[in-house]
Amino acid sequence: MPIPQPAGLRGTPETMPEPARLAAELTELAALREPDRPGWTRRVFSDPDRAARSWVADRMRQAGLRVEVDAAGNVVGTLPGAVGGGAALVSGSHLDTVDGGGRFDGMVGVLGALEAARCLQAGGRPLRHDLRVVSFCGEEPNEFGLSCVGSRAVAGTLTAEHLALTDPRGRTLAAALAGAGGDPERVGQAAWRPEALHAYCELHIEQGPRLEAAGVPIGVVPAIAGLHRCRVSFTGRADHAGTMPMTRRRDALCAAAEWILALEASAQDGVGVATAGRVMVAPGAVNVVPQSAVVSAEVRSVDAAWLAARHPRLEAAARAAGRARGVEAVLRWLSSEAPTLCAPAVQAAVRAAAQHRGLQTLDVPSGAGHDAVPLAHLGPVGMLFIPSREGRSHCPEEWTDLGDIVTGVALLLDTLRQLDGVPDCRAPRPAA
Amino acid sequence: MPIPQPAGLRGTPETMPEPARLAAELTELAALREPDRPGWTRRVFSDPDRAARSWVADRMRQAGLRVEVDAAGNVVGTLPGAVGGGAALVSGSHLDTVDGGGRFDGMVGVLGALEAARCLQAGGRPLRHDLRVVSFCGEEPNEFGLSCVGSRAVAGTLTAEHLALTDPRGRTLAAALAGAGGDPERVGQAAWRPEALHAYCELHIEQGPRLEAAGVPIGVVPAIAGLHRCRVSFTGRADHAGTMPMTRRRDALCAAAEWILALEASAQDGVGVATAGRVMVAPGAVNVVPQSAVVSAEVRSVDAAWLAARHPRLEAAARAAGRARGVEAVLRWLSSEAPTLCAPAVQAAVRAAAQHRGLQTLDVPSGAGHDAVPLAHLGPVGMLFIPSREGRSHCPEEWTDLGDIVTGVALLLDTLRQLDGVPDCRAPRPAA
Repeated sequence: MPIPQPAGLRGTPETMPEPARLAAELTELAALREPDRPGWTRRVFSDPDRAARSWVADRMRQAGLRVEVDAAGNVVGTLPGAVGGGAALVSGSHLDTVDGGGRFDGMVGVLGALEAARCLQAGGRPLRHDLRVVSFCGEEPNEFGLSCVGSRAVAGTLTAEHLALTDPRGRTLAAALAGAGGDPERVGQAAWRPEALHAYCELHIEQGPRLEAAGVPIGVVPAIAGLHRCRVSFTGRADHAGTMPMTRRRDALCAAAEWILALEASAQDGVGVATAGRVMVAPGAVNVVPQSAVVSAEVRSVDAAWLAARHPRLEAAARAAGRARGVEAVLRWLSSEAPTLCAPAVQAAVRAAAQHRGLQTLDVPSGAGHDAVPLAHLGPVGMLFIPSREGRSHCPEEWTDLGDIVTGVALLLDTLRQLDGVPDCRAPRPAA
Repeated sequence: MPIPQPAGLRGTPETMPEPARLAAELTELAALREPDRPGWTRRVFSDPDRAARSWVADRMRQAGLRVEVDAAGNVVGTLPGAVGGGAALVSGSHLDTVDGGGRFDGMVGVLGALEAARCLQAGGRPLRHDLRVVSFCGEEPNEFGLSCVGSRAVAGTLTAEHLALTDPRGRTLAAALAGAGGDPERVGQAAWRPEALHAYCELHIEQGPRLEAAGVPIGVVPAIAGLHRCRVSFTGRADHAGTMPMTRRRDALCAAAEWILALEASAQDGVGVATAGRVMVAPGAVNVVPQSAVVSAEVRSVDAAWLAARHPRLEAAARAAGRARGVEAVLRWLSSEAPTLCAPAVQAAVRAAAQHRGLQTLDVPSGAGHDAVPLAHLGPVGMLFIPSREGRSHCPEEWTDLGDIVTGVALLLDTLRQLDGVPDCRAPRPAA
């Protein structure tokens, strides 16, 4: 369902992104995919991922940006500002995908920022601040179990422990980074000083259904959800499925099933989401009572108190499900990332830009993580969302209409112009 | 917990199995195992399985039996009867194990029947009927998805479709049988005429906890449970676990979890057992709402009406679990084996033999399948059980004390003598 474009979106090359160019670039990127994987797969460190980063560096150069590839594999293109040299405005996203992913998640943020830079060039009226367009390396969850590799490096939070993480074949993240053109020895040099960041604003597809359902073209992101992951191990006893009476069993899978439903119920209040994405059952034979069931699960919310309250609730549910069946239940929290609040100055800039173009906005908290999360360690960040058809994402069916992308890029451009005039985006409330 | 042996179990070589010989043979068999698998693994068609069948043929010859290996890999040793040539008394079991199996399931039935034949030889007082001691080929579930390969062949129910079944590497059952000394082309010749069977009586470990819990040494099996297997496929939609609100998800794993609990509840009346042994979740990533969950499950009972009533109940539960979440649920019944009733004549013979030795018995329906099930297509069958420690089976911890095995073999011997005197074991009630 294409969202009608308001008349205000017609404009000069200075104020209006070029739809044909964006469409062509999205198509060229989509062709850089892993041929033996489903969908539009371009996993970090794969050959197509290296090709895509090289491709975008070329595009940046053609647009007149000064291009650097840092030790973490990030491609950074700078458009010098009228004043320049101080804190920079930054916009970007990533080009890697999940296995079986789509053509928009990440890509519209990189290409959108590049297109905004082109519009600024076309107008001949530069920003006061330098503009950095960034293609961050490896944002998606990967085989090393680490997302946001490149943006962590920029934020200075990519550690030696991270670099020592291994994939299932035993290769370290450091080795993979070195093999893909990075320099793990010098990754510390990729870190930016906090004072180098005026504000970061990322354009991204919503990856959820709210904008489409509301018929609104632009989402303003007030916060990015915190994410707590856990593993629950239920250990019972393997028994012959024909000979062990129900009353004497210690069935690990039944305990896991009860917990999965308790997890589902724990998010029915709508404050967050809860997902069990994986269950490993052993021995996994139809005629053997399951000895063990290991559930991988997560809860997400922009509400830190809600997330904290899930811990005792889900731990108690695991104990209860186990106790009812003589099954040992151990719940381990593997990671606990706090919610990220978007800077009021960035939110205000998006709203002001939309109002100026006569576009409606909707506040849409982000359930997904983004490169904006590590960047928030440095300074003010914000995001604007454009609609995802049926809310689908991380799948080949992921889709956003070109019209919606053009609208998003136009709003990104205007937002950057707005932010360029804000003296201090760190201020707790936007200037009137 | 060894069960005390009553005084009546002391006896002459004619009436009393030799514990040292049984213990030595069990130990020799246990040594014939797959070295790279857990427990006491000896899967059908493996090198150790071939070695075990060759070993038992030698033992039968040493005991004076006339040995034939049929086209289905069954080893049949015959002790001629005083009359002989007509219907035979048959006893036996199997030597193959499940992956990670134990040292008793099957083995005590083969070695027990052989030991009973030796006692009969020692007494110099042969049975009227020929006695066939059989080591059936491939009783356990195997990679071809077929159990009771050898006993099906004897019963004449091993079909060309069965022989065309393939393992995960694409090898047919026929090829595996040929490679392990069988002759798939002539497997029809392994079938017995029904009139060749006077009665079949199998000694087996209980594989459940009832005898041990009751402190009773001998179980009389009134029936062998019927077994209905099904696969339930829940198909929802893969979505980003952070961005798709709970109310718009179509989570296949949550539907599966609800069904697994409904399955568990469906057997709380104690008339049968219900087990979900396996769940496959796709895509199986912690940050993706599960698109599909496929549950492999089974119900077993000696009560055919109870089994039949599970079908609509479990189908309705699958639909309800799916409907609540917009998930498609398809339940397919893969197999439906009816319960097998043990012949009253065989049950009566076991009870009479136990009474004569002053031993208590308990009626213990068999939840597991056995070679007795295909044999029931030919004529009267029955089983006697001995205790399993903690009811464990199909695992390395499977254990039955030697004293209990000796008691079981003694009772098998006496039962065969009882049955030898029954004119027609097919009679609906035992002769007074």
